[in-house]
Formats: sequence, structure tokens, C-alpha cells
Amino acid sequence: MARLGANCYGKSRVRLSRITRSADRHDFNEWTVQVLLHGDFETSFTEADNSRILPTDTMKNTVYSIARRSSAATIEEFAMELGDYLLNNNPQVSKASIEIDEKCWERLVIDRIPDATTFKLAGDEVQTVRAERDREGGWVITSGVDGLTILKTTKSAFTGYIKDRLTTLKPAADRILGTRATIRWDYVSVSPKFSEVRARIIAVLLKEFAAHHSMSVQHTLFDMGKAALSAAPEIARIHLAMPNLHHLLADLSHFGQDNPNHIFVPIDEPHGYIEATIER
Amino acid sequence: MARLGANCYGKSRVRLSRITRSADRHDFNEWTVQVLLHGDFETSFTEADNSRILPTDTMKNTVYSIARRSSAATIEEFAMELGDYLLNNNPQVSKASIEIDEKCWERLVIDRIPDATTFKLAGDEVQTVRAERDREGGWVITSGVDGLTILKTTKSAFTGYIKDRLTTLKPAADRILGTRATIRWDYVSVSPKFSEVRARIIAVLLKEFAAHHSMSVQHTLFDMGKAALSAAPEIARIHLAMPNLHHLLADLSHFGQDNPNHIFVPIDEPHGYIEATIER
Amino acid sequence: MARLGANCYGKSRVRLSRITRSADRHDFNEWTVQVLLHGDFETSFTEADNSRILPTDTMKNTVYSIARRSSAATIEEFAMELGDYLLNNNPQVSKASIEIDEKCWERLVIDRIPDATTFKLAGDEVQTVRAERDREGGWVITSGVDGLTILKTTKSAFTGYIKDRLTTLKPAADRILGTRATIRWDYVSVSPKFSEVRARIIAVLLKEFAAHHSMSVQHTLFDMGKAALSAAPEIARIHLAMPNLHHLLADLSHFGQDNPNHIFVPIDEPHGYIEATIER
Amino acid sequence: MARLGANCYGKSRVRLSRITRSADRHDFNEWTVQVLLHGDFETSFTEADNSRILPTDTMKNTVYSIARRSSAATIEEFAMELGDYLLNNNPQVSKASIEIDEKCWERLVIDRIPDATTFKLAGDEVQTVRAERDREGGWVITSGVDGLTILKTTKSAFTGYIKDRLTTLKPAADRILGTRATIRWDYVSVSPKFSEVRARIIAVLLKEFAAHHSMSVQHTLFDMGKAALSAAPEIARIHLAMPNLHHLLADLSHFGQDNPNHIFVPIDEPHGYIEATIER
Repeated sequence: MARLGANCYGKSRVRLSRITRSADRHDFNEWTVQVLLHGDFETSFTEADNSRILPTDTMKNTVYSIARRSSAATIEEFAMELGDYLLNNNPQVSKASIEIDEKCWERLVIDRIPDATTFKLAGDEVQTVRAERDREGGWVITSGVDGLTILKTTKSAFTGYIKDRLTTLKPAADRILGTRATIRWDYVSVSPKFSEVRARIIAVLLKEFAAHHSMSVQHTLFDMGKAALSAAPEIARIHLAMPNLHHLLADLSHFGQDNPNHIFVPIDEPHGYIEATIER
Repeated sequence: MARLGANCYGKSRVRLSRITRSADRHDFNEWTVQVLLHGDFETSFTEADNSRILPTDTMKNTVYSIARRSSAATIEEFAMELGDYLLNNNPQVSKASIEIDEKCWERLVIDRIPDATTFKLAGDEVQTVRAERDREGGWVITSGVDGLTILKTTKSAFTGYIKDRLTTLKPAADRILGTRATIRWDYVSVSPKFSEVRARIIAVLLKEFAAHHSMSVQHTLFDMGKAALSAAPEIARIHLAMPNLHHLLADLSHFGQDNPNHIFVPIDEPHGYIEATIER
Repeated sequence: MARLGANCYGKSRVRLSRITRSADRHDFNEWTVQVLLHGDFETSFTEADNSRILPTDTMKNTVYSIARRSSAATIEEFAMELGDYLLNNNPQVSKASIEIDEKCWERLVIDRIPDATTFKLAGDEVQTVRAERDREGGWVITSGVDGLTILKTTKSAFTGYIKDRLTTLKPAADRILGTRATIRWDYVSVSPKFSEVRARIIAVLLKEFAAHHSMSVQHTLFDMGKAALSAAPEIARIHLAMPNLHHLLADLSHFGQDNPNHIFVPIDEPHGYIEATIER
Repeated sequence: MARLGANCYGKSRVRLSRITRSADRHDFNEWTVQVLLHGDFETSFTEADNSRILPTDTMKNTVYSIARRSSAATIEEFAMELGDYLLNNNPQVSKASIEIDEKCWERLVIDRIPDATTFKLAGDEVQTVRAERDREGGWVITSGVDGLTILKTTKSAFTGYIKDRLTTLKPAADRILGTRATIRWDYVSVSPKFSEVRARIIAVLLKEFAAHHSMSVQHTLFDMGKAALSAAPEIARIHLAMPNLHHLLADLSHFGQDNPNHIFVPIDEPHGYIEATIER
């Protein structure tokens, strides 16, 4: 006998852009939304009964309709507004999970003056949120950034590690440290100023990364997390995943050339991967 | 005060290929391995002490060295062999998690005869395994497939769903049903014949998908899972994630043309997403 | 003074799928179409005059409308039919260039019996065509394949090459030869049986690749092209681009292990690249 | 009979990064190099004779060795230096073609102060060059940018186009205009200041894009090219390819909602594509 275990369904990659008009300028946002619903859907699986199924096409329509009337300034606020609508209008749904990515469109600066209505995509970095609510509970918000790609050309070493019969790595007193970080944090308080907290966290993470005298990715990751917790009392914890962007020193000895940390070979694979949660 | 929470580290995208030589033919495998270790690494984060850190570069070397001496026939067996070596040789490690993807190189058939030494990549579909072991426990093996991309041109309907003020979807009595499925299963017994079980599961999933009179993705997903559990007593449960590959009927009415399920518009986004675990 | 040079415009990534119904089965095709038009568009650039501009949105509509009434069996025939319509209905257009990719959906085989209505994507390999016609001329058709990914585990050597002060490569008597080939051919005659010629060319290319005693990619590429020209008198020339899929022998000597062509390290970058046209 | 037509070979995706050290700061560049050689390689194809073949592995070594001794400040200069070396040391080579992409690592600014040694990837936009030289000729340099992704929320219309029986597009007096531009230019003079010219061209293209009252992509593309030619007398011509990043006005009329250019649906496919060369 087979029985249904954990399940959910929803709509992915609902894309939406928005112009917000002020007297002297436009703001522009581009979001990709995912809606996932948990609830009483068992008979759709086991009895071909769709009577409790809100079509995913309708979820898509809901995203656009709610967006039109929404005054949400952030992806966090819009995620909650969308989820509340879905929970309020669908008694068969026990839990809504909304994920939104925001592209990094930045206002174009022309001759040092921010342009009122023109934007440039400043990376494939995205701002993220996952907002989840059980019908009877409050919103649990996890904000973050994907693809924050940063690199320092010095103040990074890696020495003192385990050496065994399979070790070929040489200790490095001064190496390139690069990463494409994925960052997540959640909140102590229910209604922080999402945009301001986000900006403060990213600024302090970048500042600590730049200043840090790194003895390992672990070492730098922890001190970045610690700095974020210190700068943002609004958050409860922060998770950082920092895969290495390796830049290997090119070995030019076969050609009679030295290479005093000048020319490197960047590689994508394989790569080290370090992740940790830093808590209070 | 900040403190270290959950953490791990390892090496991703370690790529490896292998020729296995028989009297009359070669077998060929191409794997991508990820090693993640949990353990007593706290001082590397908090005190810049690398003395318990096995470099990820050494993990990479370990993959190749173990592969050379291994007689593993499957990614499941190799994952366990690799993880056992890492646990046995690193007392600071409390848990090893090994993930391996295998590319779908298939033997080339020339004039209906399988060639002894030539292969063709038959898709971006990959066979997967995640093998995890706590130092004191046994291996927990989760096998699967990513990117199994299948489509049926009939025997699929979607009707009887909730209609609300945001509904625009029209019921479909006969539609295209396509998906790029991600599938995972784990095992009842500790040492099944991984390769044979895998082949049996995939065959029955495909057979059920083709034969099914689908009233929804949920309906088909459940009956596929049920068929797999029935065909493979070796497995405890199966998880299927089946995003829709939507093919929308092209609306040609503006041009005075009908379109009796003939011409469609395939779209990648947005797309429906359905996932469930089917258990015994 | 600035003036307009060469220019064109059109619509890219128009996706279309089609079910063709027979008494006992469905056929299924999925195409991605690009339309590019050359013509008298200068005033749209220089005078903001759109009066000779067929909107790219209309090109998209044209693809679907023509597809509905078309009986084209191949991407080559459909490309010509679409281009003829555009040239016939748009006197401002001097030249139409149509490109179509076809995904490799293959009929699913269940218990050795081809299923009537179910398909599996057998790779990211695509069949391609570019069809170009000047208003006063005939169609020039270039057919091909992108992403044909093949590999042989023996009968490949690379020796006798130039050695200079920057050489570190060691000669290889027996190596893995892999490639992700891009192939293009054009035709002697105006109206070949596209589907049958295509199948014949691919079959002979694969057969030659498998059988060849390769002394270099160049050597194998040429003999593959020669075999195709010999097998397909309908074609005038064939172009093959064969980037290496390198599989480097893993160096295990540091670990006291030999490696007699057993374990390899596949790399994507950097990679060799060889291309040539083989003509009659 | 088959014979060899046009052919070349080389090495792709040779990746290289470089730290340049000043008293008070580091500069950092990351390049991806492709080398393609034309020459007397026929017997490698037709007679399995590799005696005139410089291995692509050696080309890779050459990139790193030349980089170590080079003082090139730009990808243009490095491409010529690399190509000159290859031509000077390989009499069998008749023509060298070097392509280099540079990633957009930007110096990180911390508390409004540029950091001396830390960088952030500011997009997947890349600076490009293709440098080609026939043995007897001079260098032909084509510089450019790939992936310049920009968008304006107003000052864009599209009206007055051809209407036929397949037209469904409605005229737009005020729409979003977005593009991911690919740009190429070549030079009048042999030795321009590449970096300064590049910065000037990009600045004027962005300024014109922002200021332009667009009647079509063609209209804006032409005026951007005209502005670049005017601002940069060093260049002979400029080629712009500007695919649309469509943002379609969401139709909310089914839900009783208006949508005065507020909420849009971004789509990647299909998309318009316009390209032209603007010359003097």
C-alpha cells in the first residue's frame, strides 16, 4: 500500500516588474515570485479530485492583481501581503510559502547626476526573501542575497592545516580570497525596516570582508557573521555559504619564470565550500 | 556575543571519469563528486586554528586516489567507500555527506551493434546519490535522477478545480503533460543491488507516466510513486518533484484559424510545481 | 556625419510545439524559430519612421499562423514556407533569414514497444537549419546539429607535434577523445529529402568517429567529413567544429599509485577547438 | 573526392587573473582568452602529420608565460602582444586571432573610500576584444562590450508600424525600453588609448540611451551609434545589437483593475532583435 506523505504545490518563476512614480523620478523593481502552498490536497493525489486545488495559473494572476493594489516597498512586505491574501481566500491551505528574488537594477548615473528614469543591471546578484506562515501562526521571514561576488588580493592566508599522505596543497601566506556568497538572515522582531536593515547588513559584511586578516574562509565567514549580528540587532542569526572562487598561482617554473603572486589561474571546479550559521 | 551554529565544509564539483576494461569492451563513467564534512571545526571559525581542518584540496586528492583502487560499480558504492575512508582517517569528523552525479553516457550503437569503446551523451539527465553517515551510525543512501524530461501528447486533463474572481484558466479535457522530474528514493534494506533497483524504478515510472489517464500532475505523480513502491520492495519511499513543462494551446482565433490541439506555445516561465513523497 | 551601414531585425526564440496525429500514433516536434529580415528600413533608424516596419510581434504571430496550416515535415521545409510568406507579403523586405532549432524529443519505448503518444528528451543536442533567400534568388539551406556529444575511450593518439620552450604536454599513444560537435552542411540540389539525408549523415559521422584510429582531432574531423560527403551526394560541403572535451589522466604518483588509463579528470576549460570545412 | 577547405584551430577559455601592485593599491583583472590560428595545417587533417601543429596546450602555456612578462594595461594590448609572439615563433601560422573577455571586477568602496585591495563583480557584463593579424599585415582590433543591460521606464514609444491581418500588437505611446546590448567598434588609428576611448564610448552610449525620445529600438540604436562616433573620433564604425528585454503591460481588466503603466510582465522569449552598424 502506498500513502501520500509530505507534499506541496505552487507556481514558480512568476516574473513581475513595477514602476513607482514620484514627482521627480521613477523607481523600478523586477521580481521573480514563487508561491508554494501546503494544505488539504490529498484527494487530488489519491482520488483525482481537484475540488480543493487552486490552479497555479490563478496563483500567477493573484501575484499581478495583488501587485497592482499593493504599496509594498520591499520584497518582504509584498511576500507577506501575497501570502495573507492566499491564506485568507483559501481555507484548504494550511501554510503559504512565498519566495521572491529581486534583480539588482541600479539607477544610472549620467555625468555624476542620478537619472530619473534609466537603470542598469549591476550584476546577477539578487536580493531574496522567503516568507512562510502557518494559518494559525505569524510570518517567518528569511531575507538574503544570492551571488554576492567579492574578492580580495591580499590579507588572506591558509596554513597550519592537517597534512596526511594525500596532501599536496602548499601552505599559502598570501593568497587571493574570492567567493560568490549566499547569505540568509532572519529577524528578532516582527516588523523591522527591511530595506534599511538589509543595506546595513550588506555594508558591514563587505567592510569586514575587506578589512579581515583571513586565516581561512571559516575565519573570515565567522567574523563577517559576527559583524553583521553586531551591526543589526534586528536579526536573530545569519547564515553564510561561501564557496571559494579559486585563483591558483600559475606555475611558470618550467619556463624559467618566477611568479611572485602576479599571474593566477581562476578555476570554477572543483571548489571549496564552507557554510555556517552565526547566532547570538 | 556571536557563537557558531550549524556548519560544515567540503569540496564541490570534483569531476572524475573512469574506464573499466573488459575483454571485449570498455565501460565508461563520468561522475561529479561533492564531499561535505561535519565535525569539530569550531576553532577554525572562532580562533583561526586550522589544526583540525583537512584541506578541501586533500578531499579532491582523496576522491581520485580512492577511485583508482575502488571496484565500486555504482555511485552508491563509491560514495560509501569514499565516506568510510574520510571517517576512518579523520577523527575530528563526526559525519560525512557524499553526493555524486553521474552523466548519462550511453554506449553508441552502430548498425544495430553496440560499439565496444564509443559513447554518446544521451541528455543532461543525471543519476544522483547522496550518502550520509554519522560516525556511530550506518549509511543512509538516497538515490535519484535529476532532469528526467518526459512529455505525453494526450491522456491528460485538468478540470474541476477551484474557480474564483482571479481565475482565467479554462478547463482542459485533453492537454500536453510534460515535466522535467527530479526523483529521490531511499532504501528499506542496507545493501540493495543499486543498479538493478534503479533501472527497475525508472522503467516503471516511465511506463506509468505513459499509460496514466491524468486528471492532474498530482494524480499522475501519486500513481507513478505508487507504481515504483510496488515494483521495488527494496525502497522505503519515493519523492517526486514534477514542475510543469507548459505547452499552451496557441490562440489563432484572431487570424480566423482553429487550433484543435495542433500548435502549442512552450513556455519555461512561469511554471507549475508539484512535489510529494509517496510512502508505504 | 554618421550613416547607417548593414542592418537587420527580427524575432528570436519564438517557441512552437506541434502534435501531428496519425491513426495509430502522435508525432511531436518542438521548435525554436528566429526570423531576421533585411530590407528598406533606413528611415526607421534615421527618421523615426516606422511605416516600413513589420513589428516583431507580428513575426511571432506569423510563425504560429503559418505553422497551423503548414504540412512541413522538417524544419527545413517550414523555414522556407515561413520565409516565402514573409517575402511575399512584405515588399520592403529584400532578404529573409530563418533559423530553427529542433529539440531531440524521442518516442519512449516501453517494454520494447514504441509508445504512441509519449516522448523523452534525449539530450540537449538540437537539429538546426538556417534558410536564407534574397527576394530575387532561391533558398540557401544550411542544415546541422548542435551539441552532438560523443566520446571514445581508445583508438586516439596525439604525438609528433611541435615542441618548443613552452611545451609541457606529453605525447599520448592512447587517450580519451571526446567532443561536443557543431555540424553544418549545405546542399547540391535544391530539394533533397532533408530528413533522410540528415539521418544518413549523422549515422555515418558516428560510425566514422567510432571506427577511426585518430592521430589528432584534425585527422578524425577530416575523415568524418570525408565519410559524410561520400555517403551523402546531396550535400556540397560539411563544416565540423569539434571542441575537445578533455579528460586528463589523473596524476596519482604522489600517492604511490599507478594509473594505466583508468582514472581521468574531465575539464571544461580551457579546451582545444578545431574547425574545418570539408568540400568536394 | 574530399578536400580541406577553410580551417583553424586553437585554445578556448584560457582563464587568467592578474594582480598589479602599486605603492598604495592593487589592481585586479580577470581575463578569458581564446587563441585561434590559421596556417599550413593541411597535412594534419589529411595525412595524420602533426609536425606543424603547435599543441593547444602550449598555447595555454604561452598565455600565462607572456602574461607574466607583459606590461599590457588593456586586453587590446595583451591580445596583440600574445599574437605577435605566436606569429613570430611559428612560421607555419599565417594568421592569429586572439579574443579576450574581461570580467567587470570593480574596486569596492567602503564608507565612500575606495578599498586598496578588495573588489566586487559588478555584473556579468564583459569587456571584449578581438585582435587579428595576417602575418604580412597589421593588427585589426575590434573592441566591445557584451551584456550591457539597461532599461528606461519612459521616453519610449512604438507606433506607426505596418498593420496586416496578423497584427495584434497595440501601439504604445509610453513603454519600457530595455536591452542587453552587444557592442563592437573598430579604430581609425593604429594605436589609440584603448582604455580611455572605451570609457568615453560607454559613457556617451549610456547618456544617449537615457536622454533619447525613442520611437523604436532602431531609432535609439542609431542615435546611440551616432553619439559614439561623434564622441570618439578614434573609431571608424560601431555595431550595436540590441535585443529587446520586453516588459509587457499586465492585463488586469479581467479582475476589474486598471493598470496605468504600473505592473509589467518581463519575458525573455520571444524577443525582438535589432542590429546595425553605424559608420562615418
